[in-house]
Amino acid sequence: MNIQQLIEQIRQKKNYLCVGLDTDITKLPAHLAARPDAVFEFNKAIIDATKDHCVSYKLNTAFYESQGLKGWEAMEKTLHYIPSTHFTIADAKRGDIGNTSSQYAKTFFEVLPFDSVTVAPYMGEDSVRPFLEYENKVTIVLGLTSNKGSNDFQYLKLEQSSTYLFEEVLTKVASWGTPGNLMFVAGATQASQLATIRNIIPDNFLLVPGVGAQGGSLEEVSKYGLNKNAGLLVNASRAIIFASPGEDFAEKAGVVAKEYAEEMRSYLGV
Amino acid sequence: MNIQQLIEQIRQKKNYLCVGLDTDITKLPAHLAARPDAVFEFNKAIIDATKDHCVSYKLNTAFYESQGLKGWEAMEKTLHYIPSTHFTIADAKRGDIGNTSSQYAKTFFEVLPFDSVTVAPYMGEDSVRPFLEYENKVTIVLGLTSNKGSNDFQYLKLEQSSTYLFEEVLTKVASWGTPGNLMFVAGATQASQLATIRNIIPDNFLLVPGVGAQGGSLEEVSKYGLNKNAGLLVNASRAIIFASPGEDFAEKAGVVAKEYAEEMRSYLGV
Repeated sequence: MNIQQLIEQIRQKKNYLCVGLDTDITKLPAHLAARPDAVFEFNKAIIDATKDHCVSYKLNTAFYESQGLKGWEAMEKTLHYIPSTHFTIADAKRGDIGNTSSQYAKTFFEVLPFDSVTVAPYMGEDSVRPFLEYENKVTIVLGLTSNKGSNDFQYLKLEQSSTYLFEEVLTKVASWGTPGNLMFVAGATQASQLATIRNIIPDNFLLVPGVGAQGGSLEEVSKYGLNKNAGLLVNASRAIIFASPGEDFAEKAGVVAKEYAEEMRSYLGV
Repeated sequence: MNIQQLIEQIRQKKNYLCVGLDTDITKLPAHLAARPDAVFEFNKAIIDATKDHCVSYKLNTAFYESQGLKGWEAMEKTLHYIPSTHFTIADAKRGDIGNTSSQYAKTFFEVLPFDSVTVAPYMGEDSVRPFLEYENKVTIVLGLTSNKGSNDFQYLKLEQSSTYLFEEVLTKVASWGTPGNLMFVAGATQASQLATIRNIIPDNFLLVPGVGAQGGSLEEVSKYGLNKNAGLLVNASRAIIFASPGEDFAEKAGVVAKEYAEEMRSYLGV
Protein backbone atom coordinates (compact mmCIF):
# COMPACT_ATOMS: atom_id res chain seq x y z
CA MET A 1 0.00 0.00 0.00
CA ASN A 2 1.32 3.45 -0.86
CA ILE A 3 0.54 6.82 0.75
CA GLN A 4 -2.29 7.64 -1.66
CA GLN A 5 -4.00 4.38 -0.75
CA LEU A 6 -3.43 5.10 2.93
CA ILE A 7 -5.14 8.48 2.55
CA GLU A 8 -8.04 6.70 0.84
CA GLN A 9 -8.30 4.21 3.74
CA ILE A 10 -8.34 7.05 6.27
CA ARG A 11 -11.17 8.68 4.31
CA GLN A 12 -13.16 5.47 4.19
CA LYS A 13 -12.60 4.32 7.78
CA LYS A 14 -12.61 7.84 9.23
CA ASN A 15 -9.74 7.24 11.60
CA TYR A 16 -5.94 7.42 11.57
CA LEU A 17 -5.20 4.77 14.17
CA CYS A 18 -2.15 2.57 13.98
CA VAL A 19 -2.13 -0.44 16.28
CA GLY A 20 1.35 -1.22 17.56
CA LEU A 21 2.02 -4.94 17.74
CA ASP A 22 4.78 -4.64 20.35
CA THR A 23 4.04 -8.17 21.37
CA ASP A 24 6.10 -8.67 24.53
CA ILE A 25 6.06 -12.42 25.10
CA THR A 26 6.23 -11.97 28.88
CA LYS A 27 2.91 -10.10 28.84
CA LEU A 28 0.80 -12.60 26.93
CA PRO A 29 -2.39 -13.87 28.57
CA ALA A 30 -1.73 -17.01 30.60
CA HIS A 31 -3.95 -19.24 28.48
CA LEU A 32 -1.88 -18.40 25.37
CA ALA A 33 1.62 -18.19 26.79
CA ALA A 34 2.40 -21.90 26.64
CA ARG A 35 1.23 -22.40 23.05
CA PRO A 36 4.02 -23.09 20.55
CA ASP A 37 2.99 -20.21 18.31
CA ALA A 38 1.82 -17.87 21.07
CA VAL A 39 3.02 -14.55 19.62
CA PHE A 40 1.41 -15.12 16.24
CA GLU A 41 -1.81 -16.42 17.78
CA PHE A 42 -1.98 -13.35 19.98
CA ASN A 43 -1.36 -11.01 17.03
CA LYS A 44 -3.91 -12.84 14.88
CA ALA A 45 -6.60 -12.38 17.51
CA ILE A 46 -5.66 -8.71 17.99
CA ILE A 47 -5.78 -8.08 14.24
CA ASP A 48 -9.16 -9.78 13.89
CA ALA A 49 -10.55 -7.69 16.74
CA THR A 50 -9.11 -4.31 15.72
CA LYS A 51 -8.94 -4.24 11.93
CA ASP A 52 -12.29 -2.47 11.55
CA HIS A 53 -11.10 0.33 13.82
CA CYS A 54 -7.64 1.11 12.46
CA VAL A 55 -5.86 1.80 9.19
CA SER A 56 -2.37 0.59 10.04
CA TYR A 57 -0.31 -1.92 12.02
CA LYS A 58 3.19 -1.29 13.30
CA LEU A 59 5.47 -4.15 14.31
CA ASN A 60 8.37 -3.13 16.51
CA THR A 61 11.07 -5.51 15.36
CA ALA A 62 12.81 -5.55 18.76
CA PHE A 63 10.05 -7.64 20.32
CA TYR A 64 10.42 -10.24 17.57
CA GLU A 65 14.22 -10.29 17.28
CA SER A 66 14.51 -10.90 21.01
CA GLN A 67 12.80 -14.26 20.42
CA GLY A 68 15.44 -15.28 17.90
CA LEU A 69 14.48 -17.31 14.84
CA LYS A 70 11.07 -18.10 16.28
CA GLY A 71 10.43 -14.39 16.64
CA TRP A 72 11.32 -13.63 13.02
CA GLU A 73 8.98 -16.38 11.97
CA ALA A 74 6.19 -14.82 14.04
CA MET A 75 6.92 -11.41 12.52
CA GLU A 76 6.73 -12.88 9.02
CA LYS A 77 3.48 -14.72 9.70
CA THR A 78 1.94 -11.66 11.33
CA LEU A 79 2.88 -9.42 8.41
CA HIS A 80 1.27 -11.82 5.96
CA TYR A 81 -1.86 -12.03 8.09
CA ILE A 82 -2.47 -8.25 8.07
CA PRO A 83 -5.16 -7.40 5.49
CA SER A 84 -3.91 -5.60 2.37
CA THR A 85 -6.28 -2.75 3.29
CA HIS A 86 -3.95 -1.80 6.16
CA PHE A 87 -0.68 0.13 5.97
CA THR A 88 2.16 -1.88 7.51
CA ILE A 89 5.13 -0.40 9.35
CA ALA A 90 8.35 -2.15 10.34
CA ASP A 91 9.44 -0.12 13.34
CA ALA A 92 13.08 -1.11 13.00
CA LYS A 93 14.93 2.23 13.35
CA ARG A 94 17.68 1.03 11.03
CA GLY A 95 20.41 3.05 9.36
CA ASP A 96 23.95 2.38 8.15
CA ILE A 97 26.32 3.47 5.39
CA GLY A 98 24.87 3.29 1.87
CA ASN A 99 25.64 -0.25 0.74
CA THR A 100 24.59 -1.61 4.11
CA SER A 101 21.38 0.40 4.31
CA SER A 102 20.50 -1.16 0.94
CA GLN A 103 20.54 -4.52 2.72
CA TYR A 104 18.16 -3.23 5.39
CA ALA A 105 15.88 -1.79 2.70
CA LYS A 106 15.84 -5.19 1.03
CA THR A 107 15.04 -6.83 4.37
CA PHE A 108 11.99 -4.71 5.16
CA PHE A 109 10.70 -3.98 1.65
CA GLU A 110 11.35 -7.32 -0.08
CA VAL A 111 12.15 -10.21 2.25
CA LEU A 112 9.52 -8.94 4.67
CA PRO A 113 7.26 -6.94 2.35
CA PHE A 114 6.31 -4.11 4.70
CA ASP A 115 4.86 -0.89 3.25
CA SER A 116 7.22 1.23 5.31
CA VAL A 117 10.14 1.15 7.72
CA THR A 118 11.45 3.52 10.38
CA VAL A 119 14.98 4.84 9.87
CA ALA A 120 17.42 6.68 12.17
CA PRO A 121 18.91 9.91 10.75
CA TYR A 122 22.27 10.22 12.54
CA MET A 123 24.36 8.83 9.65
CA GLY A 124 22.90 11.24 7.10
CA GLU A 125 21.74 11.14 3.51
CA ASP A 126 23.45 8.03 2.14
CA SER A 127 22.02 6.05 5.07
CA VAL A 128 18.46 7.11 4.16
CA ARG A 129 18.66 7.23 0.36
CA PRO A 130 18.58 3.44 -0.30
CA PHE A 131 15.18 3.23 1.38
CA LEU A 132 13.80 6.12 -0.67
CA GLU A 133 14.77 4.42 -3.89
CA TYR A 134 11.96 1.90 -3.57
CA GLU A 135 8.84 2.89 -5.48
CA ASN A 136 5.55 2.65 -3.63
CA LYS A 137 7.32 2.19 -0.31
CA VAL A 138 7.51 4.71 2.50
CA THR A 139 10.52 5.68 4.62
CA ILE A 140 9.71 6.98 8.09
CA VAL A 141 12.60 8.97 9.56
CA LEU A 142 12.97 9.71 13.28
CA GLY A 143 12.37 13.42 13.74
CA LEU A 144 11.41 14.00 17.33
CA THR A 145 10.97 11.01 19.62
CA SER A 146 8.72 10.79 22.65
CA ASN A 147 11.20 9.48 25.20
CA LYS A 148 13.06 11.38 27.89
CA GLY A 149 16.34 10.90 26.01
CA SER A 150 15.06 13.10 23.18
CA ASN A 151 16.40 15.99 25.28
CA ASP A 152 19.97 14.73 25.06
CA PHE A 153 20.60 15.46 21.38
CA GLN A 154 17.38 16.24 19.51
CA TYR A 155 16.90 19.41 21.58
CA LEU A 156 20.42 20.75 21.14
CA LYS A 157 20.45 24.22 19.58
CA LEU A 158 22.47 24.66 16.41
CA GLU A 159 24.83 27.55 15.95
CA GLN A 160 24.08 28.49 12.37
CA SER A 161 20.30 28.27 12.32
CA SER A 162 19.58 28.74 16.03
CA THR A 163 17.07 25.91 15.66
CA TYR A 164 16.99 22.58 17.44
CA LEU A 165 18.73 19.58 15.90
CA PHE A 166 15.40 17.80 15.30
CA GLU A 167 14.18 20.80 13.29
CA GLU A 168 17.27 20.64 11.10
CA VAL A 169 16.73 16.89 10.69
CA LEU A 170 13.18 17.50 9.50
CA THR A 171 14.21 20.28 7.12
CA LYS A 172 17.15 18.47 5.59
CA VAL A 173 15.61 15.00 5.36
CA ALA A 174 12.39 16.39 3.85
CA SER A 175 14.45 17.69 0.93
CA TRP A 176 15.64 14.15 0.14
CA GLY A 177 12.16 12.81 -0.62
CA THR A 178 8.55 13.81 -1.12
CA PRO A 179 5.42 13.58 1.01
CA GLY A 180 4.68 10.56 -1.18
CA ASN A 181 7.62 8.50 0.06
CA LEU A 182 8.70 10.13 3.29
CA MET A 183 7.04 10.30 6.73
CA PHE A 184 8.46 11.41 10.05
CA VAL A 185 8.24 10.11 13.59
CA ALA A 186 6.97 12.95 15.77
CA GLY A 187 6.81 12.31 19.50
CA ALA A 188 3.48 13.07 21.10
CA THR A 189 4.51 13.97 24.60
CA GLN A 190 5.59 17.32 23.16
CA ALA A 191 2.25 18.07 21.48
CA SER A 192 3.00 21.78 21.49
CA GLN A 193 6.02 21.00 19.30
CA LEU A 194 3.73 19.51 16.66
CA ALA A 195 2.84 23.03 15.55
CA THR A 196 6.53 23.72 14.94
CA ILE A 197 6.88 20.41 13.12
CA ARG A 198 3.82 21.10 10.94
CA ASN A 199 5.30 24.46 10.08
CA ILE A 200 8.48 22.82 8.78
CA ILE A 201 6.83 19.89 7.01
CA PRO A 202 3.22 20.84 6.25
CA ASP A 203 2.60 17.98 3.83
CA ASN A 204 4.40 14.91 5.15
CA PHE A 205 2.60 12.30 7.20
CA LEU A 206 3.58 12.20 10.84
CA LEU A 207 3.73 8.95 12.78
CA VAL A 208 2.99 9.82 16.38
CA PRO A 209 4.13 6.99 18.63
CA GLY A 210 3.41 8.26 22.09
CA VAL A 211 -0.33 8.20 22.67
CA GLY A 212 -1.71 5.89 25.33
CA ALA A 213 0.71 4.18 27.71
CA GLN A 214 3.42 6.73 26.81
CA GLY A 215 1.06 9.52 27.77
CA GLY A 216 0.32 11.95 24.92
CA SER A 217 -3.08 13.54 24.44
CA LEU A 218 -4.90 12.47 21.29
CA GLU A 219 -6.82 15.74 21.21
CA GLU A 220 -3.68 17.88 21.25
CA VAL A 221 -1.87 15.70 18.75
CA SER A 222 -4.80 15.86 16.35
CA LYS A 223 -5.24 19.60 16.78
CA TYR A 224 -1.68 20.37 15.74
CA GLY A 225 -0.90 17.38 13.54
CA LEU A 226 -3.81 16.98 11.14
CA ASN A 227 -3.50 18.46 7.65
CA LYS A 228 -5.73 18.39 4.57
CA ASN A 229 -4.97 14.70 3.88
CA ALA A 230 -5.19 13.85 7.58
CA GLY A 231 -1.39 13.50 7.38
CA LEU A 232 -1.33 11.70 10.67
CA LEU A 233 -0.97 8.17 11.96
CA VAL A 234 -1.36 7.92 15.69
CA ASN A 235 0.00 4.75 17.20
CA ALA A 236 -1.13 3.04 20.36
CA SER A 237 0.49 -0.22 21.41
CA ARG A 238 0.21 -1.37 25.00
CA ALA A 239 -2.96 0.63 25.65
CA ILE A 240 -4.69 -1.54 23.04
CA ILE A 241 -3.00 -4.92 22.85
CA PHE A 242 -2.60 -5.33 26.61
CA ALA A 243 -5.91 -3.68 27.54
CA SER A 244 -6.85 -6.90 29.34
CA PRO A 245 -4.48 -9.56 30.67
CA GLY A 246 -7.17 -12.25 30.47
CA GLU A 247 -8.90 -14.44 27.94
CA ASP A 248 -10.89 -11.42 26.75
CA PHE A 249 -7.69 -9.62 25.61
CA ALA A 250 -8.76 -9.41 21.97
CA GLU A 251 -12.29 -8.27 22.74
CA LYS A 252 -10.97 -5.55 25.06
CA ALA A 253 -8.37 -4.52 22.47
CA GLY A 254 -11.22 -4.09 19.98
CA VAL A 255 -13.15 -1.95 22.44
CA VAL A 256 -10.20 0.36 23.11
CA ALA A 257 -9.32 0.62 19.41
CA LYS A 258 -12.92 1.52 18.65
CA GLU A 259 -12.83 4.27 21.30
CA TYR A 260 -9.70 5.75 19.71
CA ALA A 261 -11.24 5.48 16.25
CA GLU A 262 -14.41 7.26 17.34
CA GLU A 263 -12.48 10.03 19.02
CA MET A 264 -10.45 10.45 15.84
CA ARG A 265 -13.60 10.61 13.76
CA SER A 266 -14.69 13.61 15.79
CA TYR A 267 -11.38 15.39 15.13
CA LEU A 268 -11.61 14.66 11.41
CA GLY A 269 -15.00 16.39 11.47
CA VAL A 270 -16.57 13.78 9.21
CA MET B 1 34.89 -11.68 26.46
CA ASN B 2 35.13 -8.36 28.27
CA ILE B 3 37.38 -5.36 27.57
CA GLN B 4 40.13 -6.49 29.93
CA GLN B 5 40.34 -9.80 28.11
CA LEU B 6 40.36 -7.99 24.78
CA ILE B 7 43.31 -5.90 25.93
CA GLU B 8 45.07 -9.12 26.95
CA GLN B 9 44.43 -10.63 23.49
CA ILE B 10 45.82 -7.53 21.79
CA ARG B 11 48.96 -7.84 23.93
CA GLN B 12 49.37 -11.51 23.10
CA LYS B 13 48.60 -11.32 19.38
CA LYS B 14 50.19 -7.90 18.88
CA ASN B 15 47.48 -6.57 16.61
CA TYR B 16 44.13 -4.81 16.91
CA LEU B 17 42.49 -6.10 13.77
CA CYS B 18 38.77 -6.74 13.55
CA VAL B 19 37.60 -8.75 10.56
CA GLY B 20 34.21 -7.60 9.32
CA LEU B 21 32.03 -10.49 8.22
CA ASP B 22 29.82 -8.37 5.94
CA THR B 23 29.03 -11.47 4.00
CA ASP B 24 27.17 -10.22 0.96
CA ILE B 25 25.61 -13.33 -0.56
CA THR B 26 25.88 -11.89 -4.08
CA LYS B 27 29.67 -11.70 -3.76
CA LEU B 28 30.40 -15.26 -2.70
CA PRO B 29 32.83 -17.30 -4.80
CA ALA B 30 31.00 -19.22 -7.51
CA HIS B 31 31.91 -22.66 -6.17
CA LEU B 32 30.24 -21.83 -2.84
CA ALA B 33 27.26 -19.78 -3.94
CA ALA B 34 24.97 -22.70 -4.72
CA ARG B 35 25.58 -24.57 -1.46
CA PRO B 36 22.63 -24.61 0.93
CA ASP B 37 24.65 -23.14 3.78
CA ALA B 38 26.88 -20.91 1.65
CA VAL B 39 27.12 -17.90 3.98
CA PHE B 40 28.13 -19.96 6.99
CA GLU B 41 30.57 -22.06 4.98
CA PHE B 42 32.18 -18.90 3.65
CA ASN B 43 32.44 -17.38 7.13
CA LYS B 44 33.83 -20.60 8.58
CA ALA B 45 36.61 -20.69 6.01
CA ILE B 46 37.36 -16.98 6.56
CA ILE B 47 37.51 -17.45 10.33
CA ASP B 48 39.82 -20.47 10.02
CA ALA B 49 42.14 -18.51 7.73
CA THR B 50 42.21 -15.24 9.68
CA LYS B 51 41.86 -16.10 13.37
CA ASP B 52 45.62 -16.08 14.00
CA HIS B 53 45.87 -12.56 12.59
CA CYS B 54 43.01 -10.75 14.31
CA VAL B 55 41.51 -10.25 17.75
CA SER B 56 37.89 -9.58 16.82
CA TYR B 57 35.08 -10.37 14.38
CA LYS B 58 32.27 -7.98 13.52
CA LEU B 59 29.05 -9.20 11.93
CA ASN B 60 27.01 -6.52 10.25
CA THR B 61 23.47 -7.73 10.90
CA ALA B 62 22.11 -6.15 7.70
CA PHE B 63 23.79 -8.74 5.51
CA TYR B 64 22.17 -11.54 7.50
CA GLU B 65 18.71 -10.04 7.99
CA SER B 66 18.41 -9.48 4.26
CA GLN B 67 18.48 -13.27 3.86
CA GLY B 68 15.51 -13.67 6.18
CA LEU B 69 15.32 -16.63 8.56
CA LYS B 70 18.14 -18.42 6.77
CA GLY B 71 20.33 -15.37 7.34
CA TRP B 72 19.64 -15.26 11.06
CA GLU B 73 20.52 -18.92 11.24
CA ALA B 74 23.82 -18.22 9.46
CA MET B 75 24.53 -15.35 11.87
CA GLU B 76 23.87 -17.61 14.85
CA LYS B 77 26.05 -20.42 13.52
CA THR B 78 28.86 -18.00 12.65
CA LEU B 79 28.79 -16.43 16.10
CA HIS B 80 29.06 -19.82 17.75
CA TYR B 81 31.92 -20.80 15.46
CA ILE B 82 34.08 -17.80 16.42
CA PRO B 83 36.72 -18.89 18.96
CA SER B 84 36.18 -17.60 22.51
CA THR B 85 39.59 -15.90 22.23
CA HIS B 86 38.06 -13.33 19.84
CA PHE B 87 35.93 -10.32 20.72
CA THR B 88 32.60 -10.44 18.89
CA ILE B 89 30.67 -7.40 17.67
CA ALA B 90 27.07 -7.28 16.45
CA ASP B 91 27.14 -4.28 14.15
CA ALA B 92 23.42 -3.67 14.43
CA LYS B 93 23.20 0.10 15.06
CA ARG B 94 20.07 -0.36 17.14
CA GLY B 95 18.37 2.11 19.45
CA ASP B 96 14.82 2.72 20.65
CA ILE B 97 13.00 3.96 23.73
CA GLY B 98 14.01 2.30 26.98
CA ASN B 99 11.74 -0.74 27.22
CA THR B 100 12.30 -1.50 23.55
CA SER B 101 16.08 -1.08 23.69
CA SER B 102 15.99 -3.68 26.47
CA GLN B 103 14.62 -6.11 23.89
CA TYR B 104 17.48 -5.32 21.51
CA ALA B 105 20.00 -5.73 24.33
CA LYS B 106 18.46 -9.12 25.06
CA THR B 107 18.70 -10.03 21.37
CA PHE B 108 22.39 -9.30 20.99
CA PHE B 109 23.66 -10.11 24.48
CA GLU B 110 21.55 -13.17 25.32
CA VAL B 111 19.72 -14.74 22.38
CA LEU B 112 22.79 -14.15 20.22
CA PRO B 113 25.54 -13.96 22.85
CA PHE B 114 27.75 -11.31 21.26
CA ASP B 115 30.34 -9.53 23.41
CA SER B 116 29.24 -6.14 22.11
CA VAL B 117 26.71 -4.35 19.93
CA THR B 118 26.72 -1.04 18.06
CA VAL B 119 24.05 1.48 19.10
CA ALA B 120 22.77 4.71 17.50
CA PRO B 121 22.75 7.76 19.79
CA TYR B 122 19.94 9.95 18.36
CA MET B 123 17.30 8.88 20.89
CA GLY B 124 19.49 9.68 23.90
CA GLU B 125 20.28 8.16 27.25
CA ASP B 126 17.33 5.86 27.86
CA SER B 127 17.95 4.28 24.46
CA VAL B 128 21.55 3.44 25.39
CA ARG B 129 21.20 2.66 29.09
CA PRO B 130 19.60 -0.84 28.75
CA PHE B 131 22.68 -2.04 26.87
CA LEU B 132 25.04 -0.65 29.52
CA GLU B 133 23.25 -2.54 32.25
CA TYR B 134 24.73 -5.85 31.12
CA GLU B 135 27.85 -6.82 33.02
CA ASN B 136 30.83 -7.95 30.99
CA LYS B 137 29.23 -6.72 27.77
CA VAL B 138 30.31 -3.73 25.73
CA THR B 139 28.13 -1.06 24.12
CA ILE B 140 29.62 0.62 21.06
CA VAL B 141 27.94 3.96 20.33
CA LEU B 142 28.17 5.72 16.97
CA GLY B 143 30.31 8.81 17.44
CA LEU B 144 31.63 9.82 14.07
CA THR B 145 30.90 7.64 11.07
CA SER B 146 33.03 7.27 7.96
CA ASN B 147 30.37 7.86 5.30
CA LYS B 148 29.67 10.99 3.31
CA GLY B 149 26.39 11.49 5.19
CA SER B 150 28.31 12.12 8.42
CA ASN B 151 28.47 15.73 7.23
CA ASP B 152 24.70 16.12 7.32
CA PHE B 153 24.23 16.07 11.09
CA GLN B 154 27.35 14.87 12.91
CA TYR B 155 29.26 17.95 11.72
CA LEU B 156 26.63 20.51 12.69
CA LYS B 157 27.99 23.12 15.10
CA LEU B 158 26.17 23.52 18.38
CA GLU B 159 25.24 26.91 19.74
CA GLN B 160 26.12 26.49 23.38
CA SER B 161 29.44 24.67 23.15
CA SER B 162 30.50 25.73 19.65
CA THR B 163 31.54 22.11 19.11
CA TYR B 164 30.28 19.66 16.53
CA LEU B 165 27.35 17.39 17.32
CA PHE B 166 29.55 14.27 17.26
CA GLU B 167 31.81 15.83 19.90
CA GLU B 168 28.82 16.45 22.15
CA VAL B 169 27.68 12.87 21.54
CA LEU B 170 31.09 11.56 22.64
CA THR B 171 31.20 13.81 25.70
CA LYS B 172 27.68 13.08 26.87
CA VAL B 173 27.56 9.37 26.12
CA ALA B 174 30.98 8.81 27.74
CA SER B 175 29.50 10.07 31.01
CA TRP B 176 26.87 7.29 30.94
CA GLY B 177 29.38 4.46 31.11
CA THR B 178 33.03 3.65 31.63
CA PRO B 179 35.90 2.66 29.34
CA GLY B 180 35.14 -0.84 30.62
CA ASN B 181 31.69 -1.04 29.08
CA LEU B 182 31.59 1.68 26.44
CA MET B 183 33.36 2.01 23.09
CA PHE B 184 32.76 4.42 20.24
CA VAL B 185 32.60 4.12 16.48
CA ALA B 186 35.10 6.62 15.06
CA GLY B 187 35.19 6.95 11.28
CA ALA B 188 38.62 6.59 9.76
CA THR B 189 38.30 8.72 6.65
CA GLN B 190 38.65 11.71 8.99
CA ALA B 191 41.87 10.48 10.60
CA SER B 192 42.80 14.02 11.59
CA GLN B 193 39.62 14.08 13.69
CA LEU B 194 40.87 11.12 15.72
CA ALA B 195 43.12 13.50 17.65
CA THR B 196 40.05 15.50 18.64
CA ILE B 197 38.22 12.32 19.55
CA ARG B 198 41.13 11.04 21.64
CA ASN B 199 41.20 14.36 23.45
CA ILE B 200 37.54 13.97 24.45
CA ILE B 201 37.68 10.27 25.29
CA PRO B 202 41.29 9.35 26.05
CA ASP B 203 40.51 5.99 27.62
CA ASN B 204 37.63 4.45 25.65
CA PHE B 205 38.25 1.95 22.89
CA LEU B 206 37.53 3.22 19.40
CA LEU B 207 36.13 0.99 16.71
CA VAL B 208 37.38 2.34 13.40
CA PRO B 209 35.27 0.96 10.58
CA GLY B 210 36.68 2.64 7.52
CA VAL B 211 40.07 1.15 6.75
CA GLY B 212 40.49 -0.73 3.48
CA ALA B 213 37.68 -0.56 0.93
CA GLN B 214 36.29 2.55 2.64
CA GLY B 215 39.65 4.23 2.30
CA GLY B 216 41.19 5.29 5.62
CA SER B 217 44.92 5.06 6.27
CA LEU B 218 45.93 2.54 8.91
CA GLU B 219 49.04 4.51 9.74
CA GLU B 220 47.13 7.74 10.43
CA VAL B 221 44.41 5.97 12.39
CA SER B 222 46.99 4.23 14.55
CA LYS B 223 49.01 7.39 15.10
CA TYR B 224 46.05 9.31 16.48
CA GLY B 225 43.95 6.48 17.89
CA LEU B 226 46.27 4.27 19.94
CA ASN B 227 46.42 4.78 23.70
CA LYS B 228 48.20 2.96 26.51
CA ASN B 229 45.90 -0.08 26.26
CA ALA B 230 45.94 0.05 22.46
CA GLY B 231 42.38 1.34 22.79
CA LEU B 232 41.73 0.65 19.16
CA LEU B 233 39.99 -1.91 17.02
CA VAL B 234 40.44 -1.34 13.32
CA ASN B 235 37.97 -3.12 11.13
CA ALA B 236 38.43 -4.26 7.56
CA SER B 237 35.65 -6.09 5.82
CA ARG B 238 35.62 -6.28 2.03
CA ALA B 239 39.39 -5.75 1.73
CA ILE B 240 39.87 -9.04 3.60
CA ILE B 241 36.87 -11.28 3.00
CA PHE B 242 36.56 -10.49 -0.70
CA ALA B 243 40.32 -10.25 -1.37
CA SER B 244 39.88 -12.96 -3.98
CA PRO B 245 36.68 -13.92 -5.82
CA GLY B 246 37.95 -17.45 -6.49
CA GLU B 247 38.40 -20.74 -4.69
CA ASP B 248 41.42 -19.30 -2.89
CA PHE B 249 39.25 -16.65 -1.14
CA ALA B 250 40.08 -17.87 2.36
CA GLU B 251 43.80 -18.20 1.70
CA LYS B 252 43.92 -14.68 0.26
CA ALA B 253 41.87 -13.35 3.16
CA GLY B 254 44.44 -14.84 5.51
CA VAL B 255 47.27 -13.19 3.58
CA VAL B 256 45.64 -9.74 3.70
CA ALA B 257 44.72 -10.10 7.39
CA LYS B 258 48.31 -11.07 8.15
CA GLU B 259 49.58 -7.96 6.33
CA TYR B 260 47.29 -5.75 8.41
CA ALA B 261 48.36 -7.53 11.59
CA GLU B 262 52.05 -7.06 10.82
CA GLU B 263 51.58 -3.41 10.02
CA MET B 264 49.73 -3.00 13.32
CA ARG B 265 52.51 -4.74 15.19
CA SER B 266 54.92 -2.09 13.94
CA TYR B 267 52.64 0.68 15.23
CA LEU B 268 52.31 -1.02 18.61
CA GLY B 269 56.09 -0.95 18.83
CA VAL B 270 56.29 -4.48 20.22
